[in-house]
Order: sequence, then C-alpha cells, then structure tokens
Amino acid sequence: MTDRHAPLWARMFELKDLEGVLGLLSWDEETYAPSGARPARGRQTGTVEALRHQRLVDPALGDQIQGALADGALTAEQHLMAKRLERQRNLAVKVPESLVKAFAEARSTALEAWQKAKKERNFSLMEKELSEVLRLLAQKADALGSTTGVKYDALLDEYEPEMTVATLRPLFAQLRAGLVPLVERIAARGRRPDTSFLSQRYDDQKQWDFTMLLLRDLGFDLERGRQDRSSHPFTSAAAPSDVRVTTRIFEDNPSSAIFSTIHECGHGLYEQGFARDHDRTTLAAAPSMGIHESQSRLWENQIGRSRAFWGHYLPMLKASFPTQLAKVDLEAFHRAINVVEPSLVRVEADEVTYNLHIIVRFELEQALLSGDLKVAELPAAWNAKMKEVLGVTPTHDAEGCMQDIHWAWGAIGYFPTYTLGNLYAAQLVHAYERHHPGLWDDVAKGNFAPLLGWLRANIHRRGFTASAQQIVADAVGGPLEIESFLGYLRQKYHALYEL
Amino acid sequence: MTDRHAPLWARMFELKDLEGVLGLLSWDEETYAPSGARPARGRQTGTVEALRHQRLVDPALGDQIQGALADGALTAEQHLMAKRLERQRNLAVKVPESLVKAFAEARSTALEAWQKAKKERNFSLMEKELSEVLRLLAQKADALGSTTGVKYDALLDEYEPEMTVATLRPLFAQLRAGLVPLVERIAARGRRPDTSFLSQRYDDQKQWDFTMLLLRDLGFDLERGRQDRSSHPFTSAAAPSDVRVTTRIFEDNPSSAIFSTIHECGHGLYEQGFARDHDRTTLAAAPSMGIHESQSRLWENQIGRSRAFWGHYLPMLKASFPTQLAKVDLEAFHRAINVVEPSLVRVEADEVTYNLHIIVRFELEQALLSGDLKVAELPAAWNAKMKEVLGVTPTHDAEGCMQDIHWAWGAIGYFPTYTLGNLYAAQLVHAYERHHPGLWDDVAKGNFAPLLGWLRANIHRRGFTASAQQIVADAVGGPLEIESFLGYLRQKYHALYEL
Repeated sequence: MTDRHAPLWARMFELKDLEGVLGLLSWDEETYAPSGARPARGRQTGTVEALRHQRLVDPALGDQIQGALADGALTAEQHLMAKRLERQRNLAVKVPESLVKAFAEARSTALEAWQKAKKERNFSLMEKELSEVLRLLAQKADALGSTTGVKYDALLDEYEPEMTVATLRPLFAQLRAGLVPLVERIAARGRRPDTSFLSQRYDDQKQWDFTMLLLRDLGFDLERGRQDRSSHPFTSAAAPSDVRVTTRIFEDNPSSAIFSTIHECGHGLYEQGFARDHDRTTLAAAPSMGIHESQSRLWENQIGRSRAFWGHYLPMLKASFPTQLAKVDLEAFHRAINVVEPSLVRVEADEVTYNLHIIVRFELEQALLSGDLKVAELPAAWNAKMKEVLGVTPTHDAEGCMQDIHWAWGAIGYFPTYTLGNLYAAQLVHAYERHHPGLWDDVAKGNFAPLLGWLRANIHRRGFTASAQQIVADAVGGPLEIESFLGYLRQKYHALYEL
Repeated sequence: MTDRHAPLWARMFELKDLEGVLGLLSWDEETYAPSGARPARGRQTGTVEALRHQRLVDPALGDQIQGALADGALTAEQHLMAKRLERQRNLAVKVPESLVKAFAEARSTALEAWQKAKKERNFSLMEKELSEVLRLLAQKADALGSTTGVKYDALLDEYEPEMTVATLRPLFAQLRAGLVPLVERIAARGRRPDTSFLSQRYDDQKQWDFTMLLLRDLGFDLERGRQDRSSHPFTSAAAPSDVRVTTRIFEDNPSSAIFSTIHECGHGLYEQGFARDHDRTTLAAAPSMGIHESQSRLWENQIGRSRAFWGHYLPMLKASFPTQLAKVDLEAFHRAINVVEPSLVRVEADEVTYNLHIIVRFELEQALLSGDLKVAELPAAWNAKMKEVLGVTPTHDAEGCMQDIHWAWGAIGYFPTYTLGNLYAAQLVHAYERHHPGLWDDVAKGNFAPLLGWLRANIHRRGFTASAQQIVADAVGGPLEIESFLGYLRQKYHALYEL
C-alpha cells in the first residue's frame, strides 16, 4: 500500500475489524449467549457501533479519503477501496444524527408494536408506529438522495447499490407475466405430491451429522468457519477466515435443516471466498444483498433441489433413516422437495411462487413510501394484491401484511433483493452450464469443486470491486434478465409436473 | 448519577463495555473459533484494545476524572468509581507508548522462545529473550513507580493493588515454616492412598452431566452464564449477566473435570455476584487477582475436597459410574482426592505443597527483577531452591524453571496472588464457620446457599469498593494471616493421614 495513505488504510482496517467484532457479537447472541445477557450485550453492541460510527464520520477520515481519491498514483484496487469507504462514510454522514436517533427509537417501538399486533392479529395496534417509521424513512431517503430523484431508489441503494425502480419495475412486470401462467398450469394439473414421509420422526443427531456432511462436501472450509444451531438460521462472518453458519433441526421435518444448511452454506462459501488480498479492506464484501442471496439460492435451489443432487445424496440419507425412507425413490423424493402451491406465507413459499410474494411487497412498499397508500389501508391493499397475484386471501393479518418483520424494522427496499438473488443465481448457473455441460454429471457425483471454482473466480474473489449487476454481467456475458430464471423453472417443473 | 459528570460516567460505561467485548472475544477464541480465524481474531482484538487504550489515555478523560474527584457533592460510591478509573488510567498513562510497544514485542518473542526451549528442554534457547523481558519489566516498574520505592511492588500492584513485598515476605516465611514440617510428617507416614480407581474409563458425556449438576447445585446461574469446554479451563466474563466458565474432560481422569468445574464455578459465582447497582462501573470488578482466586479455591478445595461434600455427591457419582466406583467408599474417595506429595509441577500440586511452589517463584522472581539473579543462573537456582523447599529436583528444565508461562509472558508479581487466594479462602471459611457452625451439615446436604449468601454479601457485592485486604479483613474481622490456612490444613490432613 502507498505509504502516503497509510493513515487511511489503518482507518479502513480498524473499521473492518470493528465490523467483524460486531458480526461475532451478533452470532454469539443468537447461538450461545445466556438469556440474561441480552441487556448487557445490547449495550456492548451499541458501544461498538457508536465507536465505529464516530470513527466513520470523523472529518479527518473524509479528508484522507478525498486525498486518496485525488491521487493518480493509487492502484486501481486502492482507488476502489477508497471509493467504497467514501460510500460507507456518505451513508453515515448524510443522515443527521437527530434523524438516526429518532429512526432507531421509532423502529424499536414499531418492532414491539408489530410483535404484539401480530400476536393479537390486530393490525391497528401497529398502525401509528409503522406510519412513524415510514415518515422517518421518507426523511432518510431525502437525506440520502439519489441520482434518479426517486425516494425509493435512495433506500434501495443501501441494499442493492446502483439498482433502481426504473430497472426493477419492467423486469418484475415481465417476471410476473411469466410466473403466473406457470403457477396456474401447475395448479390446474391437480397433482399434490406425497410429502407425508417428510413428517415422520428424524433423529436430531443424525440430521446434524447429515448437514455437516453436506457442508463439507459443498466445500465449506471448517478450519475457517463452523456450523451451530440457532432458532433462525443465518450466516455471520467475523472475517473470511471466520465464517459462522447456523441451522435449525426439527425432528418432524428434516427438510428444514437440510435446506437451511445448504442455503447458509451458499452464503458462507461466498464469505469464505473473498480474495485474500482484500483481507481487512472494503473490497472483502458483497456488493449487494441480491448477489449474496444469489449464492445461497443457487446452492439451495438450483443445486440442492435438483434431481442430480439427490441421486447422489438420497442413498446416504436413506442409510441414516432407513425406515422413514424405505419406500421413497428418487422421483418421489425429488417431487416432495419441490412442491409448488400458492400459499400465504413468503418464507414457506416454493421457488416458483416465491417471487410473486416479493412482487406484492415491492409494489406495496413503493406506494407506502410515496404516501399513495395510507398505512391504515395496507391490510385491504395487501389482501387484494395477494388475491390478484397469487390467488389466495389471508384469513387474518398475521398471515397477511404482518407476516414479515421488514417494514416494522424500517427495511424498505430490501425485499427486491431476494428476487434479484433468484435471477442472478439462474443467470449464473445458465452461463456456467453453457461452458460446462458436465455440470449435472458432476453434481450427480457430489463433485461441486468445478462449479465452486468458477463462482470463486467470477463472483467471490471479486468482492466489492464492482456493482453486483456488473459482476454478474461479466460472469455471464450479458445484462440482468429474467429468461434464465423462467427457463430454469419451466424446464424443471414441466418435467416434475409432467405439464 | 450527578448530571454534571455524565460525560465521565458515559466514558466509564464505554470502557467497561469494551472490556466485556474483549472478554467475549477471548472466550470465543478458546472455545468455538475455528483454527484458521486466529490471525484475524488477533487483529480484531488488537483493534479493540487499541481503541480502549486511546479512550483511556485521552487527556479529556483525565480532566473529567480530576473534576469529579474534586467535587464534594459526589456520593461515596461515585467517588470510588472515579478513583478506580483514575487507577486504570494511571496504569495506561504512566508507561510510555514506546515501552508498551517494545514490551509487547519482547513478550511475543519470549513466548515463542519459551515454547521452543521447553519443547527441546533447552533453557539457553530462551535466555536472551527472557532477559529482554526482564529488562523492560524493570523499566516498566520504574515508570509505574510505587509508594515503597520497591521495583517489585510496582509490578505486584497491577495484580494485587496495595500489596507489598514488605507484607508478603514475613508472611511467606512463616507459611513456609509451617508447611514444611507438615509435608515432612505426611511423607514420613509413608502412606500412598489408592487412586487407581480414578484412572479407569469415565464416559465423557456422563462426566459433563455431573459437572453441570455441580454448577447448578453450587448456585451458578445458568441464565446469566454458561459452561463450555476448552483445552485449559478458565472463566471469562463479558458482564455479571454473562459469565462463561469452561472445563475439560479426560475420560481416564474424572477429577480433572470435577475440580476444574468447581474451581471455575468459584470464579464464576464471584463475577455473577457483583452488585447490580455497579453494572457497567469500575466497581463491578475484583479488587485483586488474589481475592478472585480465593473464591475459586474456597469452592474447589475447602468445600469441594471436603468429606462432607462427597458424603453428598459420591452416591450420585457412583450412580453415574457404578462399575468404576463399586468398591470405593467415602473414606477411600476422600483420601484419593487429597493425596499430598512433593512434586515438580505446580499445576499438579496438592493444596499442602502448592504454596511451597509459589514461595520458590516469589523468591526467584524478586531476584531476577532486581538483577541479583542472572537469567543464565536461573536453572541452577531453581533446582537448588526446589531441593531446599520441596525436597525434589527436576530431571530437566521443562519440568523445572520453564514449566510456567508467566515469566516469558512478562508476569512478575502474579504468582503470589495464588497463595493469597489460599490464605483469603481459609480466613473466609474460618470466619464463616465461627458464626455458622452448621456449615458442614449444610455442605453434607448439598445446601450451599447459606455460604454463598454470606460470600455474596461480604465479598461479591462489594466488588472493588475497597482493597482486597480490606474487604477480607472486614468480612473476617481481622487482618491477613496464615494461621487459618495452616489450621485448616493441619486439621484436615492430620485426620486424613492419621498423623
């Protein structure tokens, strides 16, 4: 590194270290921390976050960043490091402290109200609190600003840098147009695969052992990471050499642990795959939530729910659970883990209907933010939209507009990244297959190294050296599109449902 | 808290939170962190430590402390909080940064040399490195200064505030004079209790379950703490509501896990017992290493190795290990866990000979620091002193002067706190018994609440509101002395060895 800018890089290392520490603190809180430690941990996390914020908004850092950016002698990578730091700092500096504080309080109040309202199935109990969050989010969007002048874009940019409503709207409209007929054809087929064998009793320890086998086989490095249990599976990285994934095991539903592990493993492989050269820099990071999600969904859905994958693993699963799976052949198993059915709850949705849930949220949250939709009208609007898009109607708001934590938590612009994850994943596999027609033979042998190697080179190691769209476009040789995803779904589900 | 000093208290909270975070980081490093995470974790810990140091030495904090100390309107407790913060800050400010850095480097080099030298049983491989550590420690002692003008006292004060060589020397001389004849009488008795049943195979999980039973029974609050495994048992507190103890289990030696758990439980009970009013303050801390050690040793030795204790627990241990303990009665078990035998290695020493190991170190480390003893002469001096005090001679330096990490680690003045822990523990139990003659009946019933309640009130809740000596003196109604300890040993071992 250029010595002249050593103080800047030292600051960057320090900020990155604090991020890592925060990652570990949150991992611990969700895994091993004793219940009584919660208040103290909250204060400790708050203290580290406040220190990080203070260091980030320090005007001296701003000067150091500008000094570096003006220095033509910087390498391209150093220039990018400074750019990313500038982005982080802008996000921290642009929002006035009074707004940060008001937002944190409003969010905390809204989260509490949401929990109560959801429990009592009474949306009016969170109406006022959600309105306040939205009011402050609109202020935050104004403070952040966006090149497009669209409020929603300012918020979206936090989760998916450089993505805009102008790009998403037509894309999501086409996606909807492509998905709805597929869902309808599957429904019209009137075939409900047998899934009863997945609700027998599966021993906890044997499930755990099987998930550890999957982790290892998929290439997760257990010397630079680990798996534990938590009530909601997640991935938290303290560093690329310290990546923690979690899973949860239900003895009456083995698919939960299996697909949670594969999903988090995808996130984990990404975090472990950042370039060593980028250690402790702003480049050892995902350029967006969407691209992060693409890695988890690629492994969970495209690979982990494929026929080839279970051709390899079903015999092993049967060896662990011979009585439960005695009469289950590969076809039956493959169908059972790929049931398509319009449903009310996003997190339980299959990969075909899933994105329709997102489209509902994407449209509603734009309207909420702009004020076109009043908070009081949300439940009715939600139900109407669900009926229109998915053909189902919640019986109460807890399984309707209150099912997700995101809005009460103040995360507007987050939902679309899930669908972007699915789109990116499909584009990646599609592009990989074109040049590596042996993909499914490899998967059928449990050989994931070639695909992982390609993802390492084309996605993981690039870190945040470009936007997500750019990195994916470079990897696949073309722009963001929905045809890869629709093509994947059609091929898979036409076969599965014999359409 | 007085509003006027709010900025000072905010700083104190912040420093305390960072200490807690460091506690958690080190716990994680010794329990769950993947092996490959070590370098990244080292950097993260270094960053948090550096931030803490920067905040501590900040001149503004010095002014705030002095402002508070000059304010007559402070409550007595607030005054003490500021005093403790002043002490912490002085320790950080007095040693120049160049010395801190040189010392850290010398220590790191010496630790590496020590590992190699110990492995190769060749002291000369660490001679130069240890000399450098000692040279810098002498400088550090000068920088810290002491009211007595004695170099050693300056270092001792870090571990045992307000303790001095002038107090320790006569005390340790008397202790030695009391211990040696007891050890000799036991040796002369020529009786080696049967311990063979303790080296049979004891199932790992059953041992774990038994240690968890002990933890719970002794009063360790598992909603405000937890037990895990580590290669060296330790206690690390992120907060009084977040206390982590560890144990280690050997299938061929159940006493390791049992007494490690009881020992760390003693440390853990202390950390959990600080007054809630002192949360996040400098008063929620042990006033010394010695008093901390008194809590672990009190439970491990005085209670955990007592006849009454095993009258209650041996039947339970037998229920877990019926074949291994079939022929073992209470007397035999009690004798087996209390074997006295002069030996070479401190960490394996019994409670009678243990303090003689400390006395050897106490004398040698004073001579090393003053320069009266040259590092090159240490092995010979060690062997001579061991022969003189314990009557044994190491066959090589790895089981001699290189057995402990402390000196290479730069911890001179640490060893005496172990013996102080034993002395304090004996005084506490002795005083408690005087007013609570039912102690051993309680212990025999597994009822530890009365003793714990008394320790809570007289030791734990006081935290760092006074020096260790003062707190113990208040609790027992008299000054530091060795007679309680010698009396305890004589009574116990005269009976055990039928002297």
